[in-house]
Amino acid sequence: MRNNMEYLFKPESVTLAGIPRGFKIGKLFLLALLDQGYSGKIYPVNPHATEIDGIPAFARISDIPGSLDMVIVMVPREQVLGVLEECGRKGARSVILYTSGFGETGEEKGRKEQEQMREIARKTGFRILGPNCMGVYSPEGGLAFFPDMPRTPGKIGFVSQSGSLANLFVKACAPRELFFRHVVSYGNGCDLDLTELLGGMGQDEDIEILCAYCEGVQDGRSLARTLEGLAGRKPVLMWKVGRTEAGRRAAASHTGSIASGEEALWNAVFHQYGVLDVYDFEEMMDILSALYHLPHEGEGRTIIVSGPGGPAVSAADAAARDGLPLAVMEEKTREKIRRLLPATGTSAGNPVDVGLSASFEIRLYLETLEILAEDRNVDAIVVLGGGATEEAQQAFTDGLIRIRQGAGKAVLAVALPGFVDMAEMAGTLCRAGIPVYPTPERALKAYARMREYLEFSKRRRGGTESP
Amino acid sequence: MRNNMEYLFKPESVTLAGIPRGFKIGKLFLLALLDQGYSGKIYPVNPHATEIDGIPAFARISDIPGSLDMVIVMVPREQVLGVLEECGRKGARSVILYTSGFGETGEEKGRKEQEQMREIARKTGFRILGPNCMGVYSPEGGLAFFPDMPRTPGKIGFVSQSGSLANLFVKACAPRELFFRHVVSYGNGCDLDLTELLGGMGQDEDIEILCAYCEGVQDGRSLARTLEGLAGRKPVLMWKVGRTEAGRRAAASHTGSIASGEEALWNAVFHQYGVLDVYDFEEMMDILSALYHLPHEGEGRTIIVSGPGGPAVSAADAAARDGLPLAVMEEKTREKIRRLLPATGTSAGNPVDVGLSASFEIRLYLETLEILAEDRNVDAIVVLGGGATEEAQQAFTDGLIRIRQGAGKAVLAVALPGFVDMAEMAGTLCRAGIPVYPTPERALKAYARMREYLEFSKRRRGGTESP
Repeated sequence: MRNNMEYLFKPESVTLAGIPRGFKIGKLFLLALLDQGYSGKIYPVNPHATEIDGIPAFARISDIPGSLDMVIVMVPREQVLGVLEECGRKGARSVILYTSGFGETGEEKGRKEQEQMREIARKTGFRILGPNCMGVYSPEGGLAFFPDMPRTPGKIGFVSQSGSLANLFVKACAPRELFFRHVVSYGNGCDLDLTELLGGMGQDEDIEILCAYCEGVQDGRSLARTLEGLAGRKPVLMWKVGRTEAGRRAAASHTGSIASGEEALWNAVFHQYGVLDVYDFEEMMDILSALYHLPHEGEGRTIIVSGPGGPAVSAADAAARDGLPLAVMEEKTREKIRRLLPATGTSAGNPVDVGLSASFEIRLYLETLEILAEDRNVDAIVVLGGGATEEAQQAFTDGLIRIRQGAGKAVLAVALPGFVDMAEMAGTLCRAGIPVYPTPERALKAYARMREYLEFSKRRRGGTESP
Repeated sequence: MRNNMEYLFKPESVTLAGIPRGFKIGKLFLLALLDQGYSGKIYPVNPHATEIDGIPAFARISDIPGSLDMVIVMVPREQVLGVLEECGRKGARSVILYTSGFGETGEEKGRKEQEQMREIARKTGFRILGPNCMGVYSPEGGLAFFPDMPRTPGKIGFVSQSGSLANLFVKACAPRELFFRHVVSYGNGCDLDLTELLGGMGQDEDIEILCAYCEGVQDGRSLARTLEGLAGRKPVLMWKVGRTEAGRRAAASHTGSIASGEEALWNAVFHQYGVLDVYDFEEMMDILSALYHLPHEGEGRTIIVSGPGGPAVSAADAAARDGLPLAVMEEKTREKIRRLLPATGTSAGNPVDVGLSASFEIRLYLETLEILAEDRNVDAIVVLGGGATEEAQQAFTDGLIRIRQGAGKAVLAVALPGFVDMAEMAGTLCRAGIPVYPTPERALKAYARMREYLEFSKRRRGGTESP
């Protein structure tokens, strides 16, 4: 990775080349920076304006007094090559090229122009994100590409070919307390691409989890090498689309990606390097929640604790299907739970059925959980349900947090729809390291996928680190 | 089905045998009836009370002056057989037996007692739901087993072995405008069981969709015959748990069910009779939403329309994976859409990419949808995204409803998380016959499953109705 990739995340100035005066899409870039509280210099460039929204504007890039750490280019497509030349002459460090109408048109002309862009960049020493991309979101540096993106930095690095998908994903993650260090949208990827961005983020010590949304890969071998380098060091979640003929056509017209049809090859590469293959928004968020909030220790021996009995039976099926080891509690644990719970309508097996009355008498839930948290055969507790009244729910939440902090074991909460409002409890619990899921099936699936990765990582590290 | 099953849904009186004076679980049955506005007679029975919450109480069942259409029994387990005998003597028509501690204990005693219960019922001519069950929710009759269950009747019949699961499911369905005619929880099922309840509901003309949650089946052959009778006439969604060893153990201690291990056999039966096999809460709700709200006509040729490009590519993959036929629009449609949309950042393929600016300029979305609604090659439109501002979102929602009403085609809306608030738009759109999903993958999956059923139904009716 060339050194000036750092200008992508902490630029001292951002130039907005071609920013509209009125309320058009391009204006979002300025609104996003202001909303994020970007503290560097902002240089709007528009030949017809002396100021944009109160910020002094320049007619040409060459008029700008300072250095160009980052230039966001949104001029009409015919002007793009000229503007890039200007950027080169002015010593720009990084360019985010929003303008579209190149490779994704499917025409030879667009593809050729993308080659010219790369040439200009290489010759003059800057890097390009795009064309047809939204650029960078990086709350520590005050960068964003949409207004209302969270201002809290976190430990996820996300490389996404689609900018709007990245925007939606980041926003949807916030209520589950999943925050990002850097998010990069690279569109058609004429210069910087998935491989290089993922590799770069892999070297960032503040990034603990990587994820990617990708429509096509130019150089499969390079990507495989990068994934090999990351294997077992950092979890990589990969949402690879364009896997069917219909998806490939859609990818081509979206970012001009040639999604290689070798599905089986990708599957093999992902498997070999422990990449977490995901298929949609919810799956990616679910696994991220587990990796982000849960302790990584233990062997994954899981116990299910539930008030409502039906969902618990389905949960046991799900755990078995997902290959999670169901914990077999110590005999003394079972005895304690038997003594604690009412004789009928409950069960001291796995699932532990605390009975319907536990939703009113929350201590039945909490004391059961405390007993289980001491059991040496239990690594993870998946708890379903909650309190039937507001007070009971509060006591339940407080208790869960106390138990999670005391035991250092994985605790996953399931806010069954129709029972407790997931949106209400998610924030508090996630902040305390307890991910919240809407169904037990999703909780168990996510935990199982995380455990698979951790087992892979252990084997991999064992293999490479042993003498 | 014996005639007095009707007393399960429209009893003129409900007797609460063993209702507690204080706030204990049993009190929920009374609260639920009051909350639902039950208009018949309520007879609380408690030897130590002359009134319960202001309603005159009786010391013994035999003291009750009127007839006993329905008796909800929650006395301690030792008293259950005696109370059932009393019910028999008093000419009770139906009994809901909440008390637990029988078959699900795994002990011979409990199983024997269940046989005795059935004997008493047969001898004296009433039917039993339970033991270990919550009974009946049927808003038209004013019946419910938990407070705050919706008062709106609908066209779904739900037979659930688990009462709390049924309660949660019904409540979670309401925001998506999915309402129920009858919901029956049958617990250990010593008398009325899945087969008979499903068969009965199948004959109810006001029930258009059937679903079931089931932990074990006593008599597989009878169930198969019932499913055969329903095949192609009414969709049946079956959430069959206890399919793994862990799930079977959980089912045994929850409702004493012996979940037969013949997984492959069940799969074959479900396949043969077009049963929609579901694995969790969300899947069941998703498919219900499609069957409930969408027109059943057409051939399922689907077009995806999106503002954000990334989710659309993944949607195309999902449609192909789910086996949905992607619509190929007429040439004149494509021409009109090309003329309508901006030249860059859009696509007139399938998916149609209306571009990012459509979220601000809603007419781009709506005019595209209007053009597609006229295309003879399109049966269903899955639309992703919405308005970027409150006004734009309102215009979007209004437009969708107009188009759905005008064209009679299937319209599915995807409220991408982070984009529009699903909770906010779901009610209005679902009421207008537009189901709303949180991701395109879930929308397409649900529609594909519905189409599979409809194709099955068409073949089946064709096969059985032709001369």
